[in-house]
Amino acid sequence: MDKDNATPVSVLGLGLMGAALARAFLNAGHPTTVWNRSAGKADALAAEGAVRAATVAEAIDASDLIIVCVLDYPVVRALLEPVAGGLDGKTVVNLTSGTPDQARRMSTWAIEQGADYLDGGIMAIPQMIAQPEALILYSGSRRAYTDHESVLGVLATGRYVGTDAGRAALFDLAMLTAMYGQIAGYLQGVALVDAEGVTAAEITPLIVSWLNAMAATLPHDAEQIDRREYTTDVSSLDLNKAGLATLVQAYEDQGLPTDVLKPIQSLIERRVAAGHGTDSLAGLIELLRK
Amino acid sequence: MDKDNATPVSVLGLGLMGAALARAFLNAGHPTTVWNRSAGKADALAAEGAVRAATVAEAIDASDLIIVCVLDYPVVRALLEPVAGGLDGKTVVNLTSGTPDQARRMSTWAIEQGADYLDGGIMAIPQMIAQPEALILYSGSRRAYTDHESVLGVLATGRYVGTDAGRAALFDLAMLTAMYGQIAGYLQGVALVDAEGVTAAEITPLIVSWLNAMAATLPHDAEQIDRREYTTDVSSLDLNKAGLATLVQAYEDQGLPTDVLKPIQSLIERRVAAGHGTDSLAGLIELLRK
Repeated sequence: MDKDNATPVSVLGLGLMGAALARAFLNAGHPTTVWNRSAGKADALAAEGAVRAATVAEAIDASDLIIVCVLDYPVVRALLEPVAGGLDGKTVVNLTSGTPDQARRMSTWAIEQGADYLDGGIMAIPQMIAQPEALILYSGSRRAYTDHESVLGVLATGRYVGTDAGRAALFDLAMLTAMYGQIAGYLQGVALVDAEGVTAAEITPLIVSWLNAMAATLPHDAEQIDRREYTTDVSSLDLNKAGLATLVQAYEDQGLPTDVLKPIQSLIERRVAAGHGTDSLAGLIELLRK
Repeated sequence: MDKDNATPVSVLGLGLMGAALARAFLNAGHPTTVWNRSAGKADALAAEGAVRAATVAEAIDASDLIIVCVLDYPVVRALLEPVAGGLDGKTVVNLTSGTPDQARRMSTWAIEQGADYLDGGIMAIPQMIAQPEALILYSGSRRAYTDHESVLGVLATGRYVGTDAGRAALFDLAMLTAMYGQIAGYLQGVALVDAEGVTAAEITPLIVSWLNAMAATLPHDAEQIDRREYTTDVSSLDLNKAGLATLVQAYEDQGLPTDVLKPIQSLIERRVAAGHGTDSLAGLIELLRK
């Protein structure tokens, strides 16, 4: 064992994701202590060599590097506050999903207890953990990240995005938002072909290729958004307004709901009505930003 | 010139897309006749070697292969009905955007005039035309597609999706719907980081990678949709409901609109309330399909 994989790690929370994290540390040779509210979830990991902590305090005592991955920040608080005295000198890496504000408050609190604090956003499903395709965003203590970069690298490709502890959560939420739009649009689209007896299996490869091609054009939108200048010789909001009308008509011809399309149509119509019909689609962000 | 690039082609409609199509034929060596309602749009193409038709009838007379790319189907009708007698024996390839029903009615009408009819959906922006990344879906007369496959191949990668003339439009609309969801989600996501002073340029590469990773999981959703069976050990609707609450909270903390997220949250909440909280996100399609 080299120095890195001798680093003991404690993992609090053994849901699907927490268990995947603990297993990744174990498989990489780290002495791994685990704790979960319902103790049964630790059984499989204990059989694989993890040390089962009877209490949160015991788990924190076992390692200098504490990984927390639970349902939400209130749960993180409820776990750590009773054992705050044990956090002095520890590094807390909180991979629980939450808002930037929650992450910042947690960081302030953890620092007050004498801990180094990193907040993280896991951009992966549990099955992807320990593979390079998995990405974890980190923000907060730069020292904590630098000190533990290679240990954390066992979990996923790591990306440190800044000293503001809320930054990783901020990026995480923005990426999730984009994903929800993508999957909702996908499901709405599949429903249209489904109404005419086409399987999802038939249309999905076409949709995936198309989404990838269109995602490749987003950096151009980003330039426009940052300049707040939305000229286009490709696809004006006027043209998209006509396109959306056709789209919605096709759904209505089939008697299908348009839950996902309607708000997008509404944004386009509002922007056109405000006199920006020659702008690109990227200009819709003016209705969504402050 | 081999046989293929000697095939004369007429292009009706010289908007951004129509002009790109005509230019692709010209560049490939096809005798190309062009017509546009406002004649000025033909100037550049005429300078490059296109023959300018003074009337729609003249354009139709000039070639056996007629490409139509105008604003919408009512315009296609308005152009072709007065010259219906000239369509006998011609092949009409209509690349105008519309609904499946519009495509089917146009096909029926064109066949009645003695024409072979193909309907097409262009999955590309004009700048992509004549590149293999551009995709055009075709449906309708199989003979028309087989006879002209290599000529049409000048425009984009072609994909014949069935004898139902409405099928290409159906697929086109489903793919556009998915794209609108993706871009709307992207813009909503960028607005969140924008509120904290992060540029679109900084977050966009992360979002693009994430969207590509998530798009790669859609074929798994497709299997579930086709089986109507939505078990998951990854990400239940219950979990997504909690995630959406966090997301919406983050937007509200910033005083930002949630136009794109709200309807997705509502779909998730409705499905959970109906007792399907342990289903995967793919199960939302049950609220969107018939």
